Amino acid sequence: MREVAVIGVGMNRWGELWEKSHRQIWTEAALEAVDDAGVDHVDAMYVGCMSSGLFVGQEHLGALLADQLGMGPIPGTRVESACASGGLAFRQAYLAVASGAHDVVLASGVEKMTDVDGAAATYALSTAADQEYECYQGVTFPGLYAMMARAHMHVHGTTRRQLSEVAVKNHRHGSKNPLAQFPQPVTAEQVEGSVLVADPLRILDCSPITDGAAAAVIVPMELARGMKKHPVVRVAASAHATDTLALAEREDVTFLASTERAARQAYRQAGIGPGELSFCEVHDCFTIAEIMVLEAIGLSARGAGGQAAASGFSAFGGKCPVNVSGGLKSKGHPVGATGVAQVREAVLQLRGQAGDRQVEGARYGLTQNMGGTGASSVVHVFERVEP
Amino acid sequence: MREVAVIGVGMNRWGELWEKSHRQIWTEAALEAVDDAGVDHVDAMYVGCMSSGLFVGQEHLGALLADQLGMGPIPGTRVESACASGGLAFRQAYLAVASGAHDVVLASGVEKMTDVDGAAATYALSTAADQEYECYQGVTFPGLYAMMARAHMHVHGTTRRQLSEVAVKNHRHGSKNPLAQFPQPVTAEQVEGSVLVADPLRILDCSPITDGAAAAVIVPMELARGMKKHPVVRVAASAHATDTLALAEREDVTFLASTERAARQAYRQAGIGPGELSFCEVHDCFTIAEIMVLEAIGLSARGAGGQAAASGFSAFGGKCPVNVSGGLKSKGHPVGATGVAQVREAVLQLRGQAGDRQVEGARYGLTQNMGGTGASSVVHVFERVEP
Repeated sequence: MREVAVIGVGMNRWGELWEKSHRQIWTEAALEAVDDAGVDHVDAMYVGCMSSGLFVGQEHLGALLADQLGMGPIPGTRVESACASGGLAFRQAYLAVASGAHDVVLASGVEKMTDVDGAAATYALSTAADQEYECYQGVTFPGLYAMMARAHMHVHGTTRRQLSEVAVKNHRHGSKNPLAQFPQPVTAEQVEGSVLVADPLRILDCSPITDGAAAAVIVPMELARGMKKHPVVRVAASAHATDTLALAEREDVTFLASTERAARQAYRQAGIGPGELSFCEVHDCFTIAEIMVLEAIGLSARGAGGQAAASGFSAFGGKCPVNVSGGLKSKGHPVGATGVAQVREAVLQLRGQAGDRQVEGARYGLTQNMGGTGASSVVHVFERVEP
Repeated sequence: MREVAVIGVGMNRWGELWEKSHRQIWTEAALEAVDDAGVDHVDAMYVGCMSSGLFVGQEHLGALLADQLGMGPIPGTRVESACASGGLAFRQAYLAVASGAHDVVLASGVEKMTDVDGAAATYALSTAADQEYECYQGVTFPGLYAMMARAHMHVHGTTRRQLSEVAVKNHRHGSKNPLAQFPQPVTAEQVEGSVLVADPLRILDCSPITDGAAAAVIVPMELARGMKKHPVVRVAASAHATDTLALAEREDVTFLASTERAARQAYRQAGIGPGELSFCEVHDCFTIAEIMVLEAIGLSARGAGGQAAASGFSAFGGKCPVNVSGGLKSKGHPVGATGVAQVREAVLQLRGQAGDRQVEGARYGLTQNMGGTGASSVVHVFERVEP
């Protein structure tokens, strides 16, 4: 397999973009990535999108968006893996370059979630869970993550305050991200006083409904080395693993086994351990999720994610800042775009272009994107390459 | 890139499978492919599915079906490209093996279309067209293909009877396929006397609404050579191209430019021309589509597809039989599964295992799968490898 590098990234301002169509949102991010890369063509494109059929009545995004890009009749492929669609689209783009099939590939993600009302959005998102065995009982995602949170509190002693600290940290981080949907800082008291959604999760424990897109341009390493526009960022590892779709079938609902598997493979491929990471971007769709991810990627001992999250370890300035971009919580969560936006943040950090939120001397960054209650996990490791 | 071979194929009986769930339909085909391959594990799986969100309220098929397969927490990826979803899932699986990322990969496709009523199915299928510029005007797929047929008749002199001959041939072929949904032979008079759907297309010009699945197991060539169960079938070429999603934006609505592009790439990769093909499986979603595909893949001159289709050239026993399986017309068209079922037919033919419908001495077979009105085309060439 060929070595692969990221040479361009793009993302638009996320939020409730009622004045923009699905394709327009995507095109803004895609053209920014192409411009950032400084290339005049791409050979193929991949797009991650969870449920454009239910959200905007449009499937067949590969051909639609390839046409929209205006760079000829290139192969355009849509990948879907619920909220991990973006990360998995990036992985398929990586495989296309690594295999030698294509040289300049656009990896992208998009979701337009606000063209339907709240109940329809909740239904569309519920299709990431097991429709026949979970949704049929009436449960939706806040309920599923609430059960994981309750179990984690019961088994490991995780506290309400530790959940709140994740939200407080990520909104503080997001306040430095000009593209974030909710850059407002929040206090633990505000989180704990916010509307209850599914006990113990309150509205400020949940990531929002968002319209947005993100994109990246990747090429073989030898091509990247000849380009002088930006420092070179290498894809040091790409891994993907699954778990049962239904939460009830898991051995341990307090642990993200698919993330652990994917992370273990990624560390092996990259030749590093969690101790060498400069920062991570992880899938904090709910505050409890970030706590569980810290355990699964080896940044804390099993069961100790709550303590780690509240310790300052994962805050900007700490040993390994987590979700410096604001994460899903503050930046927003257009489900198909999230995994690619994580890649964008990693690339900006490793290039030293992250502005006010720059992690000094960043060398390795990890991104973790997951679908459902962790039935799919996609983990990538990126490395700054010295000139 | 590594050379890739197909070592196992599977498909269930297609039709209106009200007694079986989406996942059950898929699992039948997947397990048959694994059994046919004689392997005890797969390293990763891909599934093509167009719109399980709209048809059965279930996204996140990669994780769901990987779990359903029962071979561990393997990476499971869903690919969507409207009616080309299956062919494109096969191509992504091919890239995963060719790249060296995985060794034993299951490529599959599935669609469960009969759990919704006819209007909802027509709506779901319309999401393969341009929702903002085509569907908004009220047109659906029979209407779009009817316009292509009218233009082809007007510009090239294609006749009503030539359209009928495609249906007659494919139903005659399908009568020898025990898994076909509509194996009944039809006459030209029956086609021309059937209910008008969108002038000039009648109900017997249209492929049906179908539930079904198909699967294939692929491995690197060096692994396939060590397996003695079946003759080895090599993937000689894999290509993918796009066109504008909206028909109105095409230069020539009587020609499938994306199929021509993909076919040209595929012939180059395989090192053969159309004259060396022993048979083809092509995307006859409507009778006019097969006529246009014959031109685009070089089996007839441009504009002469109607004459070629009625000449016996493409019939069983002719120079290059097309859709010996019965095609989409007779076999059925569960949209996400179609591209993989084409691969299954090609493999059975090249192994000499096609029974009553065996094309004698088959050496090269081509499969062509497309999405929308030809906005996406995926072309593969398969070759029988001499032991």
